[in-house]
Formats: sequence, structure tokens, C-alpha cells
Amino acid sequence: MTEPKSYKWFLDFLSPDEGHMHGIETILFAKQTKYQRMEILETKSYGRCLVLDGKMQSSQADEFVYHEALVHPAMLSHPEPKRVFVVGGGEGATVREILRHKSVEKVLMVDIDEEVVEQSKIYLPEWSQGAFDDPRVELRYMDARKYLEETKDNWDVIIIDISEPVEEGPAYLLYTKEFYKIVQNRLGKSGLISLQAGSAAHTSLTCFAAVYQTLKAVFPYVGGYQATIPSFGLPWGFTVASTRIDPRAIAPEEIDRRIKERIKGGTKYYSGEIHQGQFLFPKNVRNSLERFDRIIEDNQPLYTYH
Amino acid sequence: MTEPKSYKWFLDFLSPDEGHMHGIETILFAKQTKYQRMEILETKSYGRCLVLDGKMQSSQADEFVYHEALVHPAMLSHPEPKRVFVVGGGEGATVREILRHKSVEKVLMVDIDEEVVEQSKIYLPEWSQGAFDDPRVELRYMDARKYLEETKDNWDVIIIDISEPVEEGPAYLLYTKEFYKIVQNRLGKSGLISLQAGSAAHTSLTCFAAVYQTLKAVFPYVGGYQATIPSFGLPWGFTVASTRIDPRAIAPEEIDRRIKERIKGGTKYYSGEIHQGQFLFPKNVRNSLERFDRIIEDNQPLYTYH
Amino acid sequence: MTEPKSYKWFLDFLSPDEGHMHGIETILFAKQTKYQRMEILETKSYGRCLVLDGKMQSSQADEFVYHEALVHPAMLSHPEPKRVFVVGGGEGATVREILRHKSVEKVLMVDIDEEVVEQSKIYLPEWSQGAFDDPRVELRYMDARKYLEETKDNWDVIIIDISEPVEEGPAYLLYTKEFYKIVQNRLGKSGLISLQAGSAAHTSLTCFAAVYQTLKAVFPYVGGYQATIPSFGLPWGFTVASTRIDPRAIAPEEIDRRIKERIKGGTKYYSGEIHQGQFLFPKNVRNSLERFDRIIEDNQPLYTYH
Amino acid sequence: MTEPKSYKWFLDFLSPDEGHMHGIETILFAKQTKYQRMEILETKSYGRCLVLDGKMQSSQADEFVYHEALVHPAMLSHPEPKRVFVVGGGEGATVREILRHKSVEKVLMVDIDEEVVEQSKIYLPEWSQGAFDDPRVELRYMDARKYLEETKDNWDVIIIDISEPVEEGPAYLLYTKEFYKIVQNRLGKSGLISLQAGSAAHTSLTCFAAVYQTLKAVFPYVGGYQATIPSFGLPWGFTVASTRIDPRAIAPEEIDRRIKERIKGGTKYYSGEIHQGQFLFPKNVRNSLERFDRIIEDNQPLYTYH
Repeated sequence: MTEPKSYKWFLDFLSPDEGHMHGIETILFAKQTKYQRMEILETKSYGRCLVLDGKMQSSQADEFVYHEALVHPAMLSHPEPKRVFVVGGGEGATVREILRHKSVEKVLMVDIDEEVVEQSKIYLPEWSQGAFDDPRVELRYMDARKYLEETKDNWDVIIIDISEPVEEGPAYLLYTKEFYKIVQNRLGKSGLISLQAGSAAHTSLTCFAAVYQTLKAVFPYVGGYQATIPSFGLPWGFTVASTRIDPRAIAPEEIDRRIKERIKGGTKYYSGEIHQGQFLFPKNVRNSLERFDRIIEDNQPLYTYH
Repeated sequence: MTEPKSYKWFLDFLSPDEGHMHGIETILFAKQTKYQRMEILETKSYGRCLVLDGKMQSSQADEFVYHEALVHPAMLSHPEPKRVFVVGGGEGATVREILRHKSVEKVLMVDIDEEVVEQSKIYLPEWSQGAFDDPRVELRYMDARKYLEETKDNWDVIIIDISEPVEEGPAYLLYTKEFYKIVQNRLGKSGLISLQAGSAAHTSLTCFAAVYQTLKAVFPYVGGYQATIPSFGLPWGFTVASTRIDPRAIAPEEIDRRIKERIKGGTKYYSGEIHQGQFLFPKNVRNSLERFDRIIEDNQPLYTYH
Repeated sequence: MTEPKSYKWFLDFLSPDEGHMHGIETILFAKQTKYQRMEILETKSYGRCLVLDGKMQSSQADEFVYHEALVHPAMLSHPEPKRVFVVGGGEGATVREILRHKSVEKVLMVDIDEEVVEQSKIYLPEWSQGAFDDPRVELRYMDARKYLEETKDNWDVIIIDISEPVEEGPAYLLYTKEFYKIVQNRLGKSGLISLQAGSAAHTSLTCFAAVYQTLKAVFPYVGGYQATIPSFGLPWGFTVASTRIDPRAIAPEEIDRRIKERIKGGTKYYSGEIHQGQFLFPKNVRNSLERFDRIIEDNQPLYTYH
Repeated sequence: MTEPKSYKWFLDFLSPDEGHMHGIETILFAKQTKYQRMEILETKSYGRCLVLDGKMQSSQADEFVYHEALVHPAMLSHPEPKRVFVVGGGEGATVREILRHKSVEKVLMVDIDEEVVEQSKIYLPEWSQGAFDDPRVELRYMDARKYLEETKDNWDVIIIDISEPVEEGPAYLLYTKEFYKIVQNRLGKSGLISLQAGSAAHTSLTCFAAVYQTLKAVFPYVGGYQATIPSFGLPWGFTVASTRIDPRAIAPEEIDRRIKERIKGGTKYYSGEIHQGQFLFPKNVRNSLERFDRIIEDNQPLYTYH
């Protein structure tokens, strides 16, 4: 049973003292873009992977989990999502999942880093699966916060798909109370927002808990939930929020019905069963999330390890 | 934010091509016992850890998750567990959690490796917290299968707390259909069995799915469930099984009531909320578990990577 | 001074318990040839590297040390080397160094692995620098031992440039007394042989000492010497041997004179100074080399760690 | 031949992109002293090791190489060394080697870090072998530069045995032209100084070359030399300097005679052969050393990677 171990490794440091190791088959692309270090690795266990600034973003073997978990809870909770705004989402899989919802008429994706989008089209075609060519999709390369501040348009669902906030990184001002207020003002009546928020492990819950509490300071309904993306090395936290709709109140059977009716080709990961299960946390994690007493603000930003 | 990284590391290989890295503070104990390589490490992120044959068994920071998840589902599902049998469980935390159930009158723990128990008393006293000195507890050092084959005694709950099966390791014959039949015959009328069964990640589900199907070949009610033990690097699978009782049918409120009534000092991890959530899997994992077509038998054992 | 560390690493294991780590920039080529696993890595500290079966073979930053150290001692010790035979030498740098000696009229290189030669032409052109196109060079893809057994031709210098012997590897029968006798019979009157022989560190001297003693069982003059190839992580041992000529007896000034007269373009690494210094070992290494009591034979081969 | 690899590793980073890996058996001691992080590791390949600030200082398997190479060239070049001053030298092996020279009457060791000395007595007794109890030895805990500035005493040999200079570390002002002038003024007529000066690999020669040139700006005779300490992962540079004596001019036979006459118990590493060989460098290293154009000064210090 003892096979020889890999001798080329990608070490994904989750903290100075913890990491997840991936045996590398080969390196397909490596470049410093204007905003970040971008790499496409072929790993032995998870296939092709997108790595930004040394951190795993998504892998061939489990990106469907990440993207279904990010997109479907908000989309399926809305009665009929037509207009969807994506903050970030560079490799295109978030837009791909959004487009599978039959009701969608317009997707605007605003990402600051054109090179990530362009190289992902070449090296990660399975991620976007042609989504960028869909006539419903518009793509802009600029600061998404600036765009949302200046536009008057409204959206049914806004999905934030960005890296975690690191000092001097492109994303830290997209994690604050001020930004979430801007987002709230751009949502339609039954609008929902969803986003990923870092590790959901009870041992490294700061980012997730802070985002959760910051959203609670803005939205009446906030549902923290988790998903297992094995290549990340730790369970992952997400949040869905809304002014009028509580996704947790939708029954599993109704979710299964909506998946069947609304999503072209069905799902691989999402189901009524996991819709129900994902919002349920252990006692200690529940307590940490609910009792966390920090709100992220523009002048008190949050940074995670990198 | 960029703190200096550890330079002493424990590499926990989950496969030849994947691993989880733990920065080491110091090594408290390292010895080859009669059956396995035993080590106690002080890690920077998870505190004190028990490592057997190079694999993380449990850590100070999250052993309560593992042990509550292993013990409480079966114990709380039984109407009044008095007699409990533990297969393995060397460091004593499983017995510790069992003893907190007020109804318990007798715990028999059978572990093959006396040295692991003795050294754990010295180096991991937080695990057993005096459990081995409780007059209700009896401890025997022998092959648990042999013991169960020869005894006529019955038990309300049997908990199997052993390492995963590796070739030539001490545990592989405790993972077969034949062994589970022996266990079934030693359970009382409302008896339940619970056990850990390896990674629950969809990318490395073989052991969990095989154990689940093997138990289904023996018991009418089998509930696979998962828990997040961050130090393991992957989500973890467990299974509870019974001839008469279906733990999944017990409502969250009833679980919370039983915890309050029956468990001295309450719980840190377990709750009605997670009791409900832990049995709910993503669509793809659910399909893999239910459609897996391999049964583990004495002459067709299962080995995991080491 | 604390720059961020690499997160993609090539781990070159020198033993199960020791290794040298190279930060990877990218992977240019990776393939299983008929005989071995071949990879071309771009490393951060040593530039482009050839890796066979997971072990560093030579790097852009220090291959000139390895190849000058392998070729020039034997070539410069011969009065006028015209005909040179190379065993192995896949990437072409050994032939490159040989061709720089003005007296050379014919080089025959016999390597078993055509793919290594072909891919090296593409990915490592600095190694061969057109050597394979030189009309004096002939290249054959076959077992070099078989070739030498069957030919009647004689050679002035025979250079053995192969990986260390590993079990089931292509090279172990090119490290035995029987093979060195075959080589001896194919040398002209003033002929010399030279080869690399593994680590020269006193802590892992077995291969070097065994090769040295095996050559002493065949040749009257045997000079062990060492060179520092930093990317190897340990000092490296070489041996030059001859029936009539003792390279150690040639004065540094004479070496400098011959370099000037005979080598087109001069040298980067080799000089009279290092010619003298390379044969001089610490007391403990000298003793280990001279007192080692094992001879490598066809039916008692030597294997090194891999 | 493929034995299982270690899973506990000490990673000794030589740069952000290069390191040497040591399998760890256990960690005997780990503490932050007033000046540095001190650790005693038991490694699998090199036995007990002293690690300061994450860098290998010396190992059981090859500390004799380091300490003989540091001490004997200067000591044996002096006609009759009676009074020896040691800068640093915490674990006591430098004093041990000095005391073996029969002529020695007085050794003064000045180290800033008392805790390193005290813990080394406990955990590394083979290093000092009782040297600190020898009546000829005096030990002071203070800044050696300050001591030498204020004293009027003269010494036959001054040996500098300190870590490489790192920013904010304790050693960087012991590597400057100003300090070497202070040292020169404290040497007797035939006095010599010796010291270690970092990697001698041509790929990371900056520290060695700068120290060499800085000493040449102060002393008429300066001999750079190298030794192979395998646990360091790279060849190591040393320098011996003097106002009147040129160690390179002493014949190998004379060195062997002096070893026999003067050193109690003889040597393990040093000999006339290596005395001659150690001063001889490859052409490229020789050129780099001689042509390096930087002098280290108090207000232009040198820092190495850590």
C-alpha cells in the first residue's frame, strides 16, 4: 500500500503553522499579473488548480462544490432571479452556475484583474464552459465597489466571489460594512447576496465570524453555512443575506423542486438535503458565530494570513 | 501579517500526493510500542497531539469534536445506556465521554496496546480526565474481536474507536462484515454501535463508503454522518447502526432535552442542531455512499494508505 | 531580509531522512521515458534543472562544475586524447567539454535512453551547445556494456556519466568490477577512465568508497577526488583511473599550461589549483576511502537510496 | 531500497528558495533565550543538533569537522600558542579543541548568551567534554567587542565562532573592518585570527567573499579555506589571518609533525593533506573571492538570510 510519495509539492499555508500539501504533476502557467501572483498547477490528487498569491482558489476535482455552494442558495431562494451581479469570479465558474438558472436574463461580472479572466479561458476552460460568450453576460474590468457606488441599476442577486482580504491585496475593501450597505442599496425587493468567507473550522473562525456579524449589522436575514471543499484543507464558510427572504425557511422538498424546475442539467452537489444541512453548525461553532463581537469597517479592516 | 513560518513540521500524509502540515513546537514522546509507532507532539496550531504510525489521531484543540461525535449519537439514541463496550479507545477520551452519561453503570474497554494507554495517562491527561480510575470502568489488553467472540455478555452500546485499517496493522479485522455480525450478536435489544470510518471528502470516500455498505449488510438501521475535525485536514466520516433504533428519526429538540437530562456538564460540540445536520450530505456524497458496491469481508479486507 | 519563501518545492531526497529543497519557478517538461522518470524544472536558485527519477542530475547554475570536474582530469592527464568514449551523458554537456579539447578526433557516446537525449536538445540546449551536431560525434542508443563487450576498438579516454545505481534501474551493472575490466581492455596504452561516484560526505560515503576500491582492484593508478556542486546538497565524489598514468603526479603549473594549450575557450571551473586540491581529503574521509573493504561485483551489486 | 521517509522534518532554509531537510527523531530542548531561539534536535541522519534561530549550528555527526577546521589551522600555524581568546563558541567545542593543544595556558571565552552555554552543558556534553571545568578556561558573558575594546591584554590566537550576521541579531558588529582592527591590536607578535564565514558555494558566496576582503583590508596575510560539513547542506568557508604568519606556507609534513607533537589525542579531521587542500579553490571561486569589491564596515554592515 505504500506508494512512493510525490517529490514536487505545492504547500498551501493556511497560517504560519499549518498547511495543506498537494503533490504537483506539472505547472501550466505562472505569472505576476498587475494585481496578484497567478498560477495554474496540475496536481496529482485534485487535477488542475488555480492558485492566487500562493493560495488554492479552486480545483478541477471540487470546484463544482465551491461554485454550487456559492451560487445556488441565493439563486434558489429568490423567486425568479433575472438580473445577477458578480463581484470578482475571475475564472468564470460562478457565472457558469448562474447561467444554468433558466430565469436569468442578464449577468454583469466586474473583476479587477483582466489577466486572470483571460488566462483562465485558456487554461481552465472547464470552469467557464463558454460562459463568457453567452449573450446574457457582460464583463467589466474595474473596481467593483466603485462600479456599485456609481450605478443606479438594481439586481436580484449579487454574488461576491473574491479572495480573502490580505493587506495591500485587491479585496479588503470588499469585506466591510460600508461595502455591504452599498450592495444592499443595489438589490431589488427580494434581492439576496451571497459570498464565501474563509475557513469554517472552529480553530480559525475569525474571518467567517466577522463577515457574518458585519452582514448582520446590515441585513435582517443572514444565513451562515458551510461546505466541504477537500482541496482547501479546512471546511469552508459562506453567507447568504437578504432584506426580505430567509433561505433557511425554505423546505428541502421545495429546494429539490426548484432545482428540477429551474436549473438546466440539474446539480452535482446541491440538493434539498444539503440545503437543510449546510445551515446547521456544531454548538461551539454556532456560539462563536453568534457571539463574535467585531464588525469590519473601512477604517477597521480585516486581514487574513498570507 | 506575514509572520515567520515554522521550520519544524509534522507532515501527515493523507495519500502519497496529499498531506496536512502541522508546525511542531516540541516532541514530548516517541516510541515504537509492540504494535505501532506512538508519538506525542506539541503542535503550534492544535496543541498536544497523539500520532500513531505517522498519522494524526487526535489533538488538544479538537479532540472534543471527534469524541463527542463518536460517542453521543449512539448513546443519546439509546433509551437508557447502562453497559457500554469500547473497542480500542487508547487515550481514554471515548470512555470519558461515555462516563458523562448518567445512566452508565459499566464500561469495558478492550485495547490491544497497553503502552498507548499508559503513556496517554502521562502525556495526555486531558483526554482521559481520570476516566480509567472510575470504578465503573474495566480495562483489558487483548484482541477485542477475540474477546467479543468468546463472551456471552450483552451491551447497550458498542463503540469502535480504532485507527484505520492498514496492511499488517492491528485493526484490519475489526472492519469486516464478520466482525460486525459478532458485534451485533453482543448488542442488547435496543443496542447501537458507532464507529469512525475515515475521510468523508468526496475525493477519498472509499473507506467510509465501504464501511457504510458493510454495516448495511448487517444492520437494518445505518446512519452515516460527518464531523469537522480541523486537524485531520479532511472532513471525517462516522457511522451509527442498530437493529431496532434509527437515530436519524430523533428530533433536534429531543436530542437537546436528552443532553440536558442525561449528560453531566453538558456538551461542547454536540447539540440537536448538529445531530440533525450531521446526517445530511451533499448530493454527490450521498450518491457515492448509497451506490458503493463493495462489502468488506475477512478474506477481502480493506487497507487505507499509510 | 526575510523575503517570502517559495511555496512550490522540489524535494530531492538524499536518504529517507535527509533532503535538499529547491524552490520551483515552473516545470518545463515531465514524462516517463522507457527507462526513467524525466523532468526539466526551472528552479529559483539554480535555474533550469534535469531531474531523473526524482533526483537532481544537473543545474544551469553549476553543471559546468560537474562536467568540467568529470571530463578535464582524465582528458588533461592523457598526453594527446584523440578518441573518447562516453557511457551515458544524455544531456550532452560531457561531450561538449570533451570536444573543447583540440586533440579530439572522435567521440562515441552510448546512452540507453534516446528520449533523455532528444528532450535535452530541446529543453537544455545550453548543456550540449550543439555538440551532437559536431561531425566528430557519434551517438548510439543501446546498452553501453554490451557495446564495449563486443567491440574491438580502443579509446584514449572513457568517461562514465550515469546516474547512481538503483535497484531495477538502468545503471547498476555499469558499477561493477567486471564492467571496469571490460573498460580497461578497451583503453589504449595511456588510456584513462573517469566517472562520478556519489556523495563524498563522510556521513554517506558508501557508494564512493566502494567504487574507489572496486577500481583499485582493476587499475594500478586510481585517484579519488571531489567537487562541490551546490545544487546536489552534498559534496560529490569522482574517480579517475589508469593502467599507466597517475593524474595526481602532474604539477598544477603543467595543468594550467595544458588548459591554455589544449582547451578551446579555457575553463570556468578547472585549474592547476583545483587539480591539486581536489585529490586532497580530510583524514577521516581518506581513511574511509582507503580502508573500505567492499568490492562491487555483478553478483554483489551496490544500490543507493532512491 | 525504498525505506519509508521521515514525517517530522526540520527545514533549514539557506535562502527563501533553498533548504536542507533533516528528519527529526525528537526535540530535546526548545526555548527563546534573551538573544535567540535555541533548540536541540535529535535528527535521524546527524544525531543531536544545535539549532539557533532556525539554522543548523552543529551536529553530532560532523561538529568535529567544523571545530577542527575552525581551530587547528590558526593554532598549528602559531609557533607556540599559549593564550587564546574565543569570541562566541557557546557549546564549548571550540574551547575543547583549543585545550587539546599542549602549549595552551589560558583560554578566555566571551559569549553574550549564557543560556546557550548552560543548556549546551546539559544537552550537548560531547561538545564541551568538560572544557568549561578546565582550570585554564575563563568564561565571561558579555559583548566580546566591548571586552576587546577595553582590555589591554594580548592573545596568541583569537577565534571567532559566531552565527552569521542577521539584522537585529547579536553578531553583525563582529563582522566589520572596525572590529577586525580591534582584534588585530589585541594579537601578539605572531598572532593569528580565524573565523567561519558562511557558505563557500559559488552560488552563494557573498558573505564569505566580503569577510575575506574585509580581513585583507586589515591583515597582510589572509587565507580563505573551506571545509565540508555535510549537515550544513553547502560547503563552508573559513578564514585565517595574521600580521606576520602565512599558514599556507607551512608544508603538509610540518603540519603532520605539529599535530603529532602538539595535539593531545591527535585529530579526526585535520591533517597535512587537508591543510594543503583546504586553501585550494576552483578557478571561479578563486576569482570571486579575489575580485569581490565590498568591505564590511560598522555603518555598512552585512546581513545574511534568515
